[in-house]
Amino acid sequence: MEPALNFCSACGAAVSLQIPAGDSLLRHVCTACGTIHYRNPRLVVGTLPCHDERVLLCRRAIEPAHGLWTLPAGFMENGETVAAAALRETREEALAHVELGELFSLISVPHINQVHAIYRARLRDLDFAAGAETLEVRLFAENEIPWEAIAFRTILRTLQHYFADRRAGRFGFHEGSIDSVTPAIAPSGRTPPAAPR
Amino acid sequence: MEPALNFCSACGAAVSLQIPAGDSLLRHVCTACGTIHYRNPRLVVGTLPCHDERVLLCRRAIEPAHGLWTLPAGFMENGETVAAAALRETREEALAHVELGELFSLISVPHINQVHAIYRARLRDLDFAAGAETLEVRLFAENEIPWEAIAFRTILRTLQHYFADRRAGRFGFHEGSIDSVTPAIAPSGRTPPAAPR
Repeated sequence: MEPALNFCSACGAAVSLQIPAGDSLLRHVCTACGTIHYRNPRLVVGTLPCHDERVLLCRRAIEPAHGLWTLPAGFMENGETVAAAALRETREEALAHVELGELFSLISVPHINQVHAIYRARLRDLDFAAGAETLEVRLFAENEIPWEAIAFRTILRTLQHYFADRRAGRFGFHEGSIDSVTPAIAPSGRTPPAAPR
Repeated sequence: MEPALNFCSACGAAVSLQIPAGDSLLRHVCTACGTIHYRNPRLVVGTLPCHDERVLLCRRAIEPAHGLWTLPAGFMENGETVAAAALRETREEALAHVELGELFSLISVPHINQVHAIYRARLRDLDFAAGAETLEVRLFAENEIPWEAIAFRTILRTLQHYFADRRAGRFGFHEGSIDSVTPAIAPSGRTPPAAPR
């Protein structure tokens, strides 16, 4: 997913893999100017927008997971706070205006070097529509959620936690991780699988 | 803090600033192979290790903030979960073995493109010591905390929240952000400033 790291972005010379002094991991180090090029996980940030008993989902117009449903979310940009990134992504993907609630889920996805953070949010109005990367935006009651067509496992799990918490009458904060073998899609039908621990 | 981005890491050609199709921000794009080089915020992850009524702090042996006190924390690495990064940093900086509690604070620092995440944790034993990037590791009661010598504002705020929550008898989850003009150091003396909202 990340570009190859063959050359130094500062001076253009070749890099080589070395363990820098005081470090314990192999890094890409410039053979000319000595610059160390670190690569670190990225944050994907978004919201779970609600209106009454319904939840807003976006159907993706881009790969990966073209045509599948997700919450509005995307890569946090430099210069942003986590909360500002969540609001921006909700505006861009669903053209929706929300009031941000509390951070609801933080799920690591180590095999793709990402951390996904989703806030609960309340739609300020019903004036939403598909953004450039979205085919369709819709509100879903719990029994309408297309469990078999959710784009990402972090979003599936976040929705599971949301409805479980709502039934329990108390919203918590959910942290966890997803490995490369967690099933992507609920087994079958429209019954949500149990929320993971 | 990040290396200059003058050349494409994939092919070594020069990059130029452009707004790619479908994007709204200037990105570094390779003039030869077209690779887009995104830069995104980094996660700094660590723990607030406790033993009875005391909290473990590390005195930094490296810049920035050499000689000042902080919680064990550092950059999350590719391939890690947030929780695994927190445990690793605690082991590396304080040679400490902790049982991880809940995520306690998540603070954005947009002017340096970082997000700081700190877990509450319990020391499994008192067998800790300074790691390679640490001068000294000590346990501090609340009235011993060197408030005027805390290395980073995110850590100062996390400690403020911790003692405020402990007095209130209930630990919450604290999210927020710090801008470039928030005072770095508590005004004076050993009295902790009020926890921010």
